[in-house]
Amino acid sequence: MSDNSDPKPAGVNSRRAFLKGGLAVGGALAGAAAARAGTPDPAITELQEWNQYLGDGVDARPYGTPSEYEKHVVRRNVEWLTADPVSSVNFTPLHELDGIITPNGLCFERHHAGIAEVDPAKQRLMINGLVDKPLIFTMQDLMRFPRQNHVYFLECAANSGMEWRGAQLNGCQYTHGMIHNVMYTGVPLRLLLEEAGVKTNGKWVLPEGADASAMTRSIPIEKALDDCLVAFKMNGEALRPEQGYPVRLVVPGWEGNMWVKWLRRIEVGDEPWHHREETSKYTDLLEGGTARRFTWEMDAKSIITNPSPQAPITHGKGRTVLTGYAWSGRGTIPRVDVTLDGGKNWVQARMDGPSFDKSLHRFYFDFDWDGRELLVQSRAHDSTGYVQPTKDELRAIRGENSIYHNNGIQTWLVRENGQAENVEVS
Amino acid sequence: MSDNSDPKPAGVNSRRAFLKGGLAVGGALAGAAAARAGTPDPAITELQEWNQYLGDGVDARPYGTPSEYEKHVVRRNVEWLTADPVSSVNFTPLHELDGIITPNGLCFERHHAGIAEVDPAKQRLMINGLVDKPLIFTMQDLMRFPRQNHVYFLECAANSGMEWRGAQLNGCQYTHGMIHNVMYTGVPLRLLLEEAGVKTNGKWVLPEGADASAMTRSIPIEKALDDCLVAFKMNGEALRPEQGYPVRLVVPGWEGNMWVKWLRRIEVGDEPWHHREETSKYTDLLEGGTARRFTWEMDAKSIITNPSPQAPITHGKGRTVLTGYAWSGRGTIPRVDVTLDGGKNWVQARMDGPSFDKSLHRFYFDFDWDGRELLVQSRAHDSTGYVQPTKDELRAIRGENSIYHNNGIQTWLVRENGQAENVEVS
Repeated sequence: MSDNSDPKPAGVNSRRAFLKGGLAVGGALAGAAAARAGTPDPAITELQEWNQYLGDGVDARPYGTPSEYEKHVVRRNVEWLTADPVSSVNFTPLHELDGIITPNGLCFERHHAGIAEVDPAKQRLMINGLVDKPLIFTMQDLMRFPRQNHVYFLECAANSGMEWRGAQLNGCQYTHGMIHNVMYTGVPLRLLLEEAGVKTNGKWVLPEGADASAMTRSIPIEKALDDCLVAFKMNGEALRPEQGYPVRLVVPGWEGNMWVKWLRRIEVGDEPWHHREETSKYTDLLEGGTARRFTWEMDAKSIITNPSPQAPITHGKGRTVLTGYAWSGRGTIPRVDVTLDGGKNWVQARMDGPSFDKSLHRFYFDFDWDGRELLVQSRAHDSTGYVQPTKDELRAIRGENSIYHNNGIQTWLVRENGQAENVEVS
Repeated sequence: MSDNSDPKPAGVNSRRAFLKGGLAVGGALAGAAAARAGTPDPAITELQEWNQYLGDGVDARPYGTPSEYEKHVVRRNVEWLTADPVSSVNFTPLHELDGIITPNGLCFERHHAGIAEVDPAKQRLMINGLVDKPLIFTMQDLMRFPRQNHVYFLECAANSGMEWRGAQLNGCQYTHGMIHNVMYTGVPLRLLLEEAGVKTNGKWVLPEGADASAMTRSIPIEKALDDCLVAFKMNGEALRPEQGYPVRLVVPGWEGNMWVKWLRRIEVGDEPWHHREETSKYTDLLEGGTARRFTWEMDAKSIITNPSPQAPITHGKGRTVLTGYAWSGRGTIPRVDVTLDGGKNWVQARMDGPSFDKSLHRFYFDFDWDGRELLVQSRAHDSTGYVQPTKDELRAIRGENSIYHNNGIQTWLVRENGQAENVEVS
């Protein structure tokens, strides 16, 4: 792989040509309409009827929903993936989104015993173990502590896990859709721990969920006192039930399984608990039978969402917008590279939108497609200097037994007809 | 009014006392539970039953919805305010939100002929008038231009309009709820105008909506070429129908009426059109019968959302979180002041969360309430140095005939029982 400052990969006219116009976009109007006119061109009015009648009023939808024309934009699960939908996952439709915020209704779900329907009046959060003063907080108690607001991505450690053994799933919703990115409002966990008073031998915390799976994970006290939040709002409103309503733990940059939902207890201890979810699960089995443990931080990663198998190019050659997400559990994403020829030539993508710590970033590459076949890939650089590896580079170190923490570069083959497929390139 | 660096308004203990603990928050546990334990305190398990059964699976809600316990968190309209809900407004429940993002389902609605149900396949955007090459764009055409992402507030010019003549509506949802704040994805209007080629005498643009009201507003070409967006996504997903699906104009910092929804045409002209919405409406009638016109920019403003009439203090005295929003159509909000005694003493609030240009900002004041009556107010300072005025200061200049552009300081009286009312102080 090489970096060129002025590359011209196969299939691409220059950026200059793009900005100069490339192929025309937008149809020319009939001459009459070009004059200063109070009414639009007949080509528009004949097509449309919604200016002929009154629509629904402001009392129709106290809580709004998407347009009927967007019914295909939904989370999707894969029936054969798990034995039962109550211990399963569905996927965010990344290819239908833009910007960096995931709307709450489309945030992927992962639960181990279904969605707990918690009554906030009966919600309690206990802090116990190695503390001076064990405490139980009601929701109202939590609302009396100073709050913070942060945008963070949450990525399941198993996101892209099926791709370790080669191209498996045809669409970024399925290969990379176990991720979402919202603005959380919550109380720093540090403040609650200080209220209880952590004893000097308190070195780990164990958050526990109130659902039937009673999810638990061991977290070092340093992380708990650093940036963890006990969150009750996402994107301004109450957490959604499937995201832990009324309160969940936020563990910025770390694997999603640790962000315990329906949070009812935080125990302080002097060593990790070695529970199921950090021994038989959420560990990385290497060649030879040993396993990586406590691989909490999510490595830098990126994915091209458009074009992709679920979002082909339908407009033919000419001006084309390629776009996607990049993120890192260790900081921000100052740079993303894109290739259109399977890694022979790389160009720097345009970053747009807010750059927050441990948040999704949006990148674009605006180019003039000459209609030839493309092999598109993206490569994230994070603020620590780390560069997203290829899948083969990951396999060389970790073998092919692993499920978790696949942050390898993804490839889509875009055919001349604009259709895209999930492929592997060496 | 005065600024004190270390004030101690009536009704408030010091911030130091707050941080040191103030009154205890959170109940003490029974002794047994304080030990390292695998199960929570019986006080919790006896209260809760949702850990005893499996919940809904990942196939239950392809597009998610809020908890049943949040059914009261909705947009609300006021029946007596307008003759018909198809030409009316509803209000964002500001007192139920936190952070700075408004979730799409709760963004207030204002339409003049109901919600147009536009088929995106039949959507067209025409650019005509004083251009070299009149054009018609399909949605697919628009998606081929380079995109940007920005968080902007949209405020109706009539927000708080009822309050000109004194305290009228009891709740910030009604006094200040004609505002929302989302991340937009769209194409700079400049790029579309450049594609058509604006003639040298093209000095104004007239965006036009495709609904039955055919909404139009005159906008100077300088603003059109500066930061206006032709937007198709909000908070990551497609615009909601009531917000102009599939495409609306975004006019950052300017009054909401100009953000034409269901955008079907942009005409370029050499002078303003003087249409209904910029003559008989959206002008400010002064004493003596003259009117301010073209008052586009929204002045700096703020509102305390909690406590407020719809969100009383229910926990009694002790630690209390006061919070609210501040914003300016001219930039950012570096500072908000808060008073608890009707303006005798002011303290600087804590800003938290992202500070974007022409976006809502979140402020907090964490204090230890001694249980005495409060008169709470907030006062925004924007990045131009402008300071939010009192209502009386506004009335002295603009009289009491106006409906639009009331950015005066709002007052809530909080009684000893925690209930709050909309009041005026001089």
